[in-house]
Amino acid sequence: MHPVIVLLTDFGHQDPYVGQMKGALLCAAPDACIVDLCHEVAPHDTVQAGFLLQASHGHFPRGSIFVCVVDPGVGSARSILMARLEDRFYLAPDNGLLSFLLDEKASWWRARTITPAASRTFHGRDIFAPLAARLAGGQSPDSLGSQLAPDEVVRLETPWATIRDGALDCRVLHVDRFGNCLLNLRSAFGHSPGRTWLTHDGREIVEARTYSELPHGRIGLLAGSQGVMELAVNGESCARILHLSPGSPLSMKESLRP
Amino acid sequence: MHPVIVLLTDFGHQDPYVGQMKGALLCAAPDACIVDLCHEVAPHDTVQAGFLLQASHGHFPRGSIFVCVVDPGVGSARSILMARLEDRFYLAPDNGLLSFLLDEKASWWRARTITPAASRTFHGRDIFAPLAARLAGGQSPDSLGSQLAPDEVVRLETPWATIRDGALDCRVLHVDRFGNCLLNLRSAFGHSPGRTWLTHDGREIVEARTYSELPHGRIGLLAGSQGVMELAVNGESCARILHLSPGSPLSMKESLRP
Amino acid sequence: MHPVIVLLTDFGHQDPYVGQMKGALLCAAPDACIVDLCHEVAPHDTVQAGFLLQASHGHFPRGSIFVCVVDPGVGSARSILMARLEDRFYLAPDNGLLSFLLDEKASWWRARTITPAASRTFHGRDIFAPLAARLAGGQSPDSLGSQLAPDEVVRLETPWATIRDGALDCRVLHVDRFGNCLLNLRSAFGHSPGRTWLTHDGREIVEARTYSELPHGRIGLLAGSQGVMELAVNGESCARILHLSPGSPLSMKESLRP
Repeated sequence: MHPVIVLLTDFGHQDPYVGQMKGALLCAAPDACIVDLCHEVAPHDTVQAGFLLQASHGHFPRGSIFVCVVDPGVGSARSILMARLEDRFYLAPDNGLLSFLLDEKASWWRARTITPAASRTFHGRDIFAPLAARLAGGQSPDSLGSQLAPDEVVRLETPWATIRDGALDCRVLHVDRFGNCLLNLRSAFGHSPGRTWLTHDGREIVEARTYSELPHGRIGLLAGSQGVMELAVNGESCARILHLSPGSPLSMKESLRP
Repeated sequence: MHPVIVLLTDFGHQDPYVGQMKGALLCAAPDACIVDLCHEVAPHDTVQAGFLLQASHGHFPRGSIFVCVVDPGVGSARSILMARLEDRFYLAPDNGLLSFLLDEKASWWRARTITPAASRTFHGRDIFAPLAARLAGGQSPDSLGSQLAPDEVVRLETPWATIRDGALDCRVLHVDRFGNCLLNLRSAFGHSPGRTWLTHDGREIVEARTYSELPHGRIGLLAGSQGVMELAVNGESCARILHLSPGSPLSMKESLRP
Repeated sequence: MHPVIVLLTDFGHQDPYVGQMKGALLCAAPDACIVDLCHEVAPHDTVQAGFLLQASHGHFPRGSIFVCVVDPGVGSARSILMARLEDRFYLAPDNGLLSFLLDEKASWWRARTITPAASRTFHGRDIFAPLAARLAGGQSPDSLGSQLAPDEVVRLETPWATIRDGALDCRVLHVDRFGNCLLNLRSAFGHSPGRTWLTHDGREIVEARTYSELPHGRIGLLAGSQGVMELAVNGESCARILHLSPGSPLSMKESLRP
């Protein structure tokens, strides 16, 4: 069996950084099956990275090793975390990226890294890749770091929106290529297809089951495929129509019209 | 032997969608060799996707499984097709993307899919990937769907341009990174290097064998590598010079000057 | 052991070209582990490609085969080079891309290629990929080409900047996604953290060890991870602040203020 190593970074595709990480992984774990989850996280956006990982990790095989390098603090004293949950491993800087795992029964370690000279160091390639390769080779996290209590791990506050008095105050977590706006509103918030909402500037939004049931030009609120609710317009970019981008706030009130 | 699974989508690279599809594939087909053909198909452009697949599929090994997800009708009642041609398999929505295979001796099946609740469903990850993995594992298409007659398959009309009375009415199928404009004109149209054409606004185009034989600034018509004729300018973007983009029409008349 | 084949091109991601190359590689070398180094080299920029390869090749396993297709002269009479250095193989057009290997003890061959009809030929897919697959399958370079003396290989002049009379005349080799500007100044130029420089328009630059030790808004000169010095601003794009892009010249004088 080839160990699966999954990469999530903000390195983009224009640079040799992802390629060099893969080279370093293959040097130390020649049998690894390396998969790109996403490299287009907005530079240094640990909230977006955490969301994408949370939405994605369950779709990968047991035994997968996630290497997440979105690291505004590279070169500083921040430590490197290893976590384990249900036979999957997670590596990331201790900057909150992994904090969704704090709500699960994960085990935590602080990696014992021998940092090369701080300059010239590209942590993804020079520290994370060798560490992931050791896990892929079967070394125990105990041999690579020291156990941490969950409350020693940096936690990002990512509040989930809820309905209160018929009002919803949301935030956009991610805008996808199709212009769908993924919200900080869990699919389990109390979705009620057919119900309508009004934005503060009077736009009507209708809760729907699928893109294709939305009439032309209608803005829908759907339980998307990523575990959260999405605003979408069938065949058009909802982000462009509503002028939304990652981080945008959005307030809506339930509409009493049928 | 590792089964080769080739992905063609309009998902782009900014989202976790391609990565999640790969995760789902590896869950069910851990030995698969997954290859990206292209993920930058224009959103919902089934004509472009069909052209790219047609130009590419013959370059992959026998036994390859192509998973093509460009799906404006996701969530609607459109069915999912499986086709087989010369030991290669093709999966796509029944929206015309695969219709070039109708001109070959392909066999066709309508996949029997147990669609999960229509909402929350990402067909590429939740339906196409498990189906491709079953084919990769050696299951027969007959066990995964019901045979279809070719005339039950949705056909896209993609007319090919031809010379008529010394005139050519073409259309741009694809503009590549170098600004080369791939036309709906088969390489076998009657290419005659040295012949010249005039566009409706008086630009001269010369048929040529290679990019490098084109004098500086000259617009060439070449039998490209994708089975169709291309307009190209050596070292410059022909698309920019002629203001062409995918879908643009282009009329030319044969020039009588030597 | 799977042979590692590393791809470096200027093909971008919007076209099927990289995918077709991988298909051709897998047809002839089904066990290959294909890795993308970078496909976003600026079109036809052999200097940038040579720099990215030089910065990256040592991070890949021994035995890796690098296939580098940045080829302004495709279709012309330029030949195809094979080089070997420390058990790694390098394939590229003879256009200077590999000339950094001339400073090492590489061995050189001119590939004996039976070029198909010049038109319709996509050299990356139709010539480079089969050649790389033969090397991956264990064929000797002597059986695939004829030995060359190093002085028969096209050399690109890529002068390295040096300090002269307290002045530095540099050039930007690459701008990365974070806006860091990689210079033609080797990390070994005589880096002295704390020293300050003034650009010709009065901007102050300070030599630093890490991104994180730079105060907010300060422009730093760091020994980056790619073997060369980088200009960087912590958390911002230095390229935007200094209006630099690949190829931009930059002059600085040592500042005498402490």
